[in-house]
Amino acid sequence: MPRTPQQAYDELIRRMKEIELLGSCAGLLGWDQRTYMPAKASPYRAEQLALLSGMVHQKFTDPEIGGLIGEVEGSALVAGPESAPAVNVREWRRGYDRMTRLPRSLVEELTRTCALAHDVWAGARKTSDFPKFRPYLEKVVGLKRQAADAYGFAHHPYDALLEDYEPGETTANLTRVFADLREELVKLIGDVVGSGKRPDTSVLHRDYPVDRQETFGKMAAAAIGFDFEAGRLDVTVHPFCSGLGPGDTRLTTRYDARQFNMALFGILHEAGHGLYEQGLDPEHSGTPMAEAVSLGIHESQSRMWENFVGRGRAFWAHFFPLARHLFHESLSDVSADDLLFAINDVRPSFIRVEADEATYNLHILLRFELEQALLTGDLKAGDVPGAWNERFKKYFDLTPPDDAQGCLQDTHWSGGGIGYFPTYSLGNLYAAQFFEQARKELGDLDAQFARGEFLPLRDWLREKIHRQGMRYRAGQLVERVTGKPLSHRPLMAHLKAKYGALYGI
Amino acid sequence: MPRTPQQAYDELIRRMKEIELLGSCAGLLGWDQRTYMPAKASPYRAEQLALLSGMVHQKFTDPEIGGLIGEVEGSALVAGPESAPAVNVREWRRGYDRMTRLPRSLVEELTRTCALAHDVWAGARKTSDFPKFRPYLEKVVGLKRQAADAYGFAHHPYDALLEDYEPGETTANLTRVFADLREELVKLIGDVVGSGKRPDTSVLHRDYPVDRQETFGKMAAAAIGFDFEAGRLDVTVHPFCSGLGPGDTRLTTRYDARQFNMALFGILHEAGHGLYEQGLDPEHSGTPMAEAVSLGIHESQSRMWENFVGRGRAFWAHFFPLARHLFHESLSDVSADDLLFAINDVRPSFIRVEADEATYNLHILLRFELEQALLTGDLKAGDVPGAWNERFKKYFDLTPPDDAQGCLQDTHWSGGGIGYFPTYSLGNLYAAQFFEQARKELGDLDAQFARGEFLPLRDWLREKIHRQGMRYRAGQLVERVTGKPLSHRPLMAHLKAKYGALYGI
Repeated sequence: MPRTPQQAYDELIRRMKEIELLGSCAGLLGWDQRTYMPAKASPYRAEQLALLSGMVHQKFTDPEIGGLIGEVEGSALVAGPESAPAVNVREWRRGYDRMTRLPRSLVEELTRTCALAHDVWAGARKTSDFPKFRPYLEKVVGLKRQAADAYGFAHHPYDALLEDYEPGETTANLTRVFADLREELVKLIGDVVGSGKRPDTSVLHRDYPVDRQETFGKMAAAAIGFDFEAGRLDVTVHPFCSGLGPGDTRLTTRYDARQFNMALFGILHEAGHGLYEQGLDPEHSGTPMAEAVSLGIHESQSRMWENFVGRGRAFWAHFFPLARHLFHESLSDVSADDLLFAINDVRPSFIRVEADEATYNLHILLRFELEQALLTGDLKAGDVPGAWNERFKKYFDLTPPDDAQGCLQDTHWSGGGIGYFPTYSLGNLYAAQFFEQARKELGDLDAQFARGEFLPLRDWLREKIHRQGMRYRAGQLVERVTGKPLSHRPLMAHLKAKYGALYGI
Repeated sequence: MPRTPQQAYDELIRRMKEIELLGSCAGLLGWDQRTYMPAKASPYRAEQLALLSGMVHQKFTDPEIGGLIGEVEGSALVAGPESAPAVNVREWRRGYDRMTRLPRSLVEELTRTCALAHDVWAGARKTSDFPKFRPYLEKVVGLKRQAADAYGFAHHPYDALLEDYEPGETTANLTRVFADLREELVKLIGDVVGSGKRPDTSVLHRDYPVDRQETFGKMAAAAIGFDFEAGRLDVTVHPFCSGLGPGDTRLTTRYDARQFNMALFGILHEAGHGLYEQGLDPEHSGTPMAEAVSLGIHESQSRMWENFVGRGRAFWAHFFPLARHLFHESLSDVSADDLLFAINDVRPSFIRVEADEATYNLHILLRFELEQALLTGDLKAGDVPGAWNERFKKYFDLTPPDDAQGCLQDTHWSGGGIGYFPTYSLGNLYAAQFFEQARKELGDLDAQFARGEFLPLRDWLREKIHRQGMRYRAGQLVERVTGKPLSHRPLMAHLKAKYGALYGI
C-alpha cells in the first residue's frame, strides 16, 4: 500500500525534528566553546562539532528526504500556500536542493580554504598587510562564484549567495532601495556634521562598575520582555545570541568598566534577537514554521530594541533615574538630555562595528557594492584596497590610514560570508518600517516606554513577526505587516526626526 | 578478500572513537543541565539527551560490532592479555555482551520505573513516608533482579549488578573484606567516642566569604596538580566531576559562607577525580585503555586527596598560613592543631553524606548487606525500615528518628543503582592501600606536602594508575601497585594512626 502524502509529511516531520534536535546539540557545544570551554579542550571540541554537523548534513541530504518531499509536493496537503505543511515543505525543498546542489568537493574545498583564510586574514589585519590576504580573498571569491553557479541564479550571481541569508531577496531590489537610502543618508550626515553641534561623549567614559552594568543590563532586558527563566546572559569577547531550542535562548555581552553604553546597547541588541527566538511558535518547534524568516528580519528585531527603543528619549525617561541611582558617582552631574545626546553621537569613522546608527549603513552599502563587483569579476581581489578607499572618501569624506582600518577590518570575507553584509542594513530598514507601523497600531508608544511598559510592543512583534516563523518571505512579511513594500523612507524619517531634534537641523 | 584481524580492529577503533565522541557531546549537555541551563529548557534537554544516548546505544549494539569483535578475538593481535588491543577488545566484548543481553523491554521498563520511582522517592523522603515509596522499591528491586538474571552470574545475583560499577569484583570478596573492616571499625569508633575528647567544631562555622573560599579551593586544586587550562570549577547543588574528553575535565562544588570545610574538601575530592580524568593516556583516548578501571578506583583518587592528603597534618603545615591570611577574621585565634582536630571530628550520625572518614564506611556496609538481601528475596521491601534501624543500632548505637534520616536518605535505590554503594568504601580501602605504598616509594611524603610539593604523589598516581586505563581489573591493579591483594589493614592503620594521635587512644 503506497504511503499517503499525510504519511510522508508525518515522516518528514519526525526526521526533521530529529535533525533539528541533533543540530541543537551542536548549538550548545558551540555556545560552550565561546563561553566556558577550557582552552585545551579546543581540538576535541572541533572533532565533536565536525561529527555532529556531518551527521546533520548526512541526514538532511539523504535521498529519502528528497523522495518524501516529492511525495508531499503537489498534494492537497500543501494547497494553501501559507499553511504550515506548505511552508515547511517549501523550505525543506529549498534547503534540500541547495545542500544537494553543491558538489561535495566544493563544500570541502570551501571549508578548508576558509579555515586557512581566516587565520591568514587575522594575521594580515594585525600588520595591515593586504597582499598577504589577497590570494586567499581571490580563492574564496572564486569558490563562492562556483557555488553561485552550482546553486543557479536568474539575474546576478550575488542573488544565489544572498539566498543563504535573505531568502527570496534580490540584488536588484537591494540596489534600488540602498541607492535611495545612500543619497539621503549622505546628505543627512553632512547636515549633522555641518551643524557644528557635538555631544560631550566623555560622560560615557567614566566609572561604571561591571557588576552594576550587569544588573542594569539584565533589568533592561527583562523589562523589554526577555524571559530569563528560558535564557541567560554570559560574557564573551564577541557578543552573540544563540537560540538553542525551546526554553533555551542565550545572550552574551562584554563589559568595560569605563564604558557606559557598550554592554547596555549590546544587551538590548542581543535581547532583541533573543525575543525573536523566545517568540517562535512552540507548536511548530523543529520545523521552518518556527524558524526566523531571514537574517535581515532577525536583525530588525535587535536593531529595533537597541536603536529605535533603547536610544530613544522615551526609554530614558523611564531608565535614566534607575541609571543615575546605580551609577551615582558618574551620572550625578549629568542630565537625561546630556546622556541621550551622548549615546546618539553621529560621527563618520573607519570601523563598521563602532559606527553610529546613521553612518553604519554607509559601511554596509560600500561592502555590498564591492562584493557584487568581486563576484562578477569586475573587481579583482588585488584592487580591493583602492576601490575601498575611493568609495570611503566618497561616502565619508575620509581616507582610511591603513587597510587594517579599511578593507581588512571584517572577518566575513575570510569566512566565505559574501552576501551577509546587506542583512545588517536590511535589519535597520525593516526595523524602521515595523516600528513606524507599531506606532500607528499601538497608540502612544513613547508614553508607554516612559512608564516602563515595553510588553505591548514585544507582544505586537511576537504576533506579527515571531509567531509567523517562515510563513512569508521577508519582503512579503514587511508588506503584510506594514501594507507597503520595503522602502528607505521610514528609516530616513526616523533618523531625520531624531537628529533634527538633537542637532537642530 | 576477507578482512584481517588488524583491519577489523582498526574499524572497531574508528567506530568506538566515534561512539565515544558522540557520548562526550551528551556529557557536555549533562554538565550544562546541572550548571547553567535555564529552567525552561528542561524538557527539550531531556529530548536531546534521549536522542544522543539512543544513538550511542544503537551504534554500540550494532551486530556488526559483535562481528568485528569476534574477528579480532583469538587472533595474534590480542595474544598478550595486557596489550592495548587485548584490553580494548576484552572491554568492548564485555560491554557489548552486557548491553545486548538485556531485553529491550526490560531496559525500557527500568527507565520508566526509575523515572517514576525517583519522583516518588523525593516526595516520600520529604514527608518521611516510606509506605509511599515501598511499591516502587519493590518494583525496582524486581527489575534489577531480572537484569541480574539476564546478565548471568555464577554465585550471587549481586555479582551481576556489581559488574556495572566494579568490573570483576565479587560479593564474596567484598563480604570478606568488609567483615574484617566492620569489626575493627566499630571498635575504633567506640574508642574515639569513649575517649571523651571532642574537637571544637564551632571554628568551622564562622564567616568564610564565598569568593575567598573559591580562591582557596582553586589554589589547593592547582597545587595538587589539577590543570585549569584543561578544566574548570563551577557551582552546583550536588557537586560532581565530569570528564568530558581530552582537555576538558570539569569540577563543581557548593559554597556556604558559614562553613569552612564543605567547599574545600568537596573541591579536593572532585579534583582527585579530575586528576584521574586528566591523567588518562591521550594516546588511547576514546578506548578502554584511556578509561577508568572502576568506580572504586575512581573514588580512591578522590578520597586520597580529600582525606589522606587534605585532612592530614602535613597538608595544613603548608596551607594553614594561607588559610589564616585569607580568612583572618575567623582564623586569627585558631591554631593549626585546632583546625586539624575540627576537620577530623568523628561522630556517629544518621546521614551518610555528612559522615566522617571513619563512620562513613559503616553506612556503606549496612547498605551493602541490605541490598544483597533484597536481591535474593531474603528481605522484603516492606521490611527495609525495620532492618535498617536494627542494623543502625548495632553499628552506630543510634536509632534514626524517622525514615527520612534512615532508609529513605539516598537517591540510589530509586535510580536503580543497586550495587553502587560498595564502591564508596572500596574507594577508601584502595586509597589507603595505594597511599601506604606511595609512602614507601616516594620518601617522606609529609615533608613534601609541608613544603607544598604535591606533584610527586600526583605523578606517581598518574604513572601507576591513571595511565593504565582499564589494562587491569581493580583487584589486579591493587596487587600490581602494592604487591598485596585488597585488605582492610591499610585503612585501619591509617585511621588508627590519625585518631590515635588526635584522640589520645
